[in-house]
Amino acid sequence: MGEPQLRVPGPTPLPARVVRSASRPMINHRGPEFAAVMDDVIGGLRWALRTDNEVLLYPCSGTGGLEAAAVNLLSPGEQALFCVMGSFGERWAKIGETYGADVVRLTVPLGEPIDPEDVERTLAEHPEITTVFVTHNETSTGVTNDLAAIAGVVKSRGKMLAVDSVSGAGCLPLETDALGIDVLVTGSQKGWMAPPGIAMIAVGAAAFERSETAKCPRFYLDFGREKKSQDKNQTATTPAISVMFALQEGLAMLREEGIDNAWARHARVGRMIRAGVEAMGMKLLAADGHRSDTVTAVHSPADSPEALKNLLTTLRTKHRLVLAGGQESLQGKIFRIGHLGFIDDADAYTILALLEAGLIDTGLRTRGGLAIAAAQSEARGAVAPAEPVSVG
Amino acid sequence: MGEPQLRVPGPTPLPARVVRSASRPMINHRGPEFAAVMDDVIGGLRWALRTDNEVLLYPCSGTGGLEAAAVNLLSPGEQALFCVMGSFGERWAKIGETYGADVVRLTVPLGEPIDPEDVERTLAEHPEITTVFVTHNETSTGVTNDLAAIAGVVKSRGKMLAVDSVSGAGCLPLETDALGIDVLVTGSQKGWMAPPGIAMIAVGAAAFERSETAKCPRFYLDFGREKKSQDKNQTATTPAISVMFALQEGLAMLREEGIDNAWARHARVGRMIRAGVEAMGMKLLAADGHRSDTVTAVHSPADSPEALKNLLTTLRTKHRLVLAGGQESLQGKIFRIGHLGFIDDADAYTILALLEAGLIDTGLRTRGGLAIAAAQSEARGAVAPAEPVSVG
Repeated sequence: MGEPQLRVPGPTPLPARVVRSASRPMINHRGPEFAAVMDDVIGGLRWALRTDNEVLLYPCSGTGGLEAAAVNLLSPGEQALFCVMGSFGERWAKIGETYGADVVRLTVPLGEPIDPEDVERTLAEHPEITTVFVTHNETSTGVTNDLAAIAGVVKSRGKMLAVDSVSGAGCLPLETDALGIDVLVTGSQKGWMAPPGIAMIAVGAAAFERSETAKCPRFYLDFGREKKSQDKNQTATTPAISVMFALQEGLAMLREEGIDNAWARHARVGRMIRAGVEAMGMKLLAADGHRSDTVTAVHSPADSPEALKNLLTTLRTKHRLVLAGGQESLQGKIFRIGHLGFIDDADAYTILALLEAGLIDTGLRTRGGLAIAAAQSEARGAVAPAEPVSVG
Repeated sequence: MGEPQLRVPGPTPLPARVVRSASRPMINHRGPEFAAVMDDVIGGLRWALRTDNEVLLYPCSGTGGLEAAAVNLLSPGEQALFCVMGSFGERWAKIGETYGADVVRLTVPLGEPIDPEDVERTLAEHPEITTVFVTHNETSTGVTNDLAAIAGVVKSRGKMLAVDSVSGAGCLPLETDALGIDVLVTGSQKGWMAPPGIAMIAVGAAAFERSETAKCPRFYLDFGREKKSQDKNQTATTPAISVMFALQEGLAMLREEGIDNAWARHARVGRMIRAGVEAMGMKLLAADGHRSDTVTAVHSPADSPEALKNLLTTLRTKHRLVLAGGQESLQGKIFRIGHLGFIDDADAYTILALLEAGLIDTGLRTRGGLAIAAAQSEARGAVAPAEPVSVG
């Protein structure tokens, strides 16, 4: 008898030690204690993101982080490519338009990934594009892009690359520097096992240089202003201190586990969830080969939006499993399972067992047990985690 | 033997029950539990701010809140008056300039308040000014403006009025609706006894109407977009959930105390701190009659910036009292005591006793006890708090 199973694609459940860390007394954000926290958090993020770049910390949601990337890289009238495969890609493109950028959209059907060849072709057709904005893991559809292939195309043409990995980083393999990602955005409430409230943005030297001449107006989200403070291990304005404490502890847990092991854990849990869902006769929204290991979007097993809503309500109120519905045009058509951050095999079994029970309760299935068997079969193939490598 | 005394002008210490509330498990920000928290927090803020206006909640620092006010009220080229009496007023004016507003500054010497007659004269000289931005309580100098008089001038000329009360609201008397304040900005980490991470912005109908045509670009901070979500008791992007939990509990404590009693408590503690500081032979930066009841800025008792730094370090390391230095041009010249939020008479005595001990340690005073006697004398005149009025 514990807390409800919160399995939306963020916020994610908090480990007890993260909650304890977040409960530390407030400290002066201009003093030496906070500087040490900053140093530790930024070091941990650099390690986890595989980057030597500066990591800027803003008190804001992931959307604020996306806006920061756009306004620091672009000037009004400047042509930029926004790769749209769902709500969050579309939101980023809208931000670009809001600030007057000349937005070129590469839009794919919901459930499909961005095809690197389409990126190549679009860049060839629009040589004035200076910057490419792409979602690593689209939270609204459960699709993971082949980021390495896309980055290869973008960088081979010498374009600036900004990546939304809000719901990917910390969970999915991500080599920020090896891929040449100029700006990478993530958020505290996803893979990092902390509450929402901080966007973390890894910014490379070329992006800082661009921001010096980029003309979209900004003050709060300005890269240069924030960097000037962070060079002194401070923040430009008052940081979200308790969320910083949480993030510090979440990163400590990731360091103890090893980032490769965390990636492998998410891959295994992702396979278990998908196998279980399919064993219950449901269909996945995401195209095969591009299914996310952090978010699974499932076509509604019900024959109406009302019946889907009834399923989600039954799961929440009777089985205490909190899943997410679809967003915008997918509302009433899909539901989503978040399986990122503080999650392991046991949680995957719990999610599947509760989901199956709810399906039976609402008349959408007649027989149980198949989901767990399928997930067990997926998990059985997994090897024990490697010893984490030493983390300098 | 407790925690260090954190007495900077925010973040402020957290009551134990606020920490416990902030430690509640994460919840789905699109679900009914969060909607109930939103409803309670917004209701509490309306009550405390004496307003029927919508209160928007943004995950950001106070500076983000100031930016939201500017970009939602102004268009590039639009003339606006920024009243500057310190770092935070100047920051607001810079935000206005960053977005291309035609900024008229009314600047007073550090330690002085804004004279309503100067506002009157400036508005007469610049009839094209549409909007006035004014700081209620300037955290960098410890000066509180006569907000009622300034608001009277601004509203009698039919101008839009935006007020920064980040470090005033919840502590100092503030009648948002009675004064006709169109946009009022405050922050979770000041009088509200919660950690930093949320800016709360009370927005009136005229301000929402203005924001529909205001042309400064914004997405994350847009009033209309946020209101659309809040009308459904949601937020436009992921909220800082743990800070929301904390804010809910801080507001519950204020409701139990009664807002008039909280104002009276801050007034009493403010008098105690000032009396104690003056009894130790130090001079206050703020002009008499405009001294803040949340932040006291004190001219350095030392003869060099290094000696002041030594005092502040001694206080922090030996006496575990954390005070703030001066900002920008006041660095090395003043120090600041924050006395807002979770504070009462006992804390005032502690602050003064530790400060006096530190002054003696660093050779800046030879004899103790005078500060406490002076503070006791101030406190003696105070009457017992009234029963809080019922809070609908």
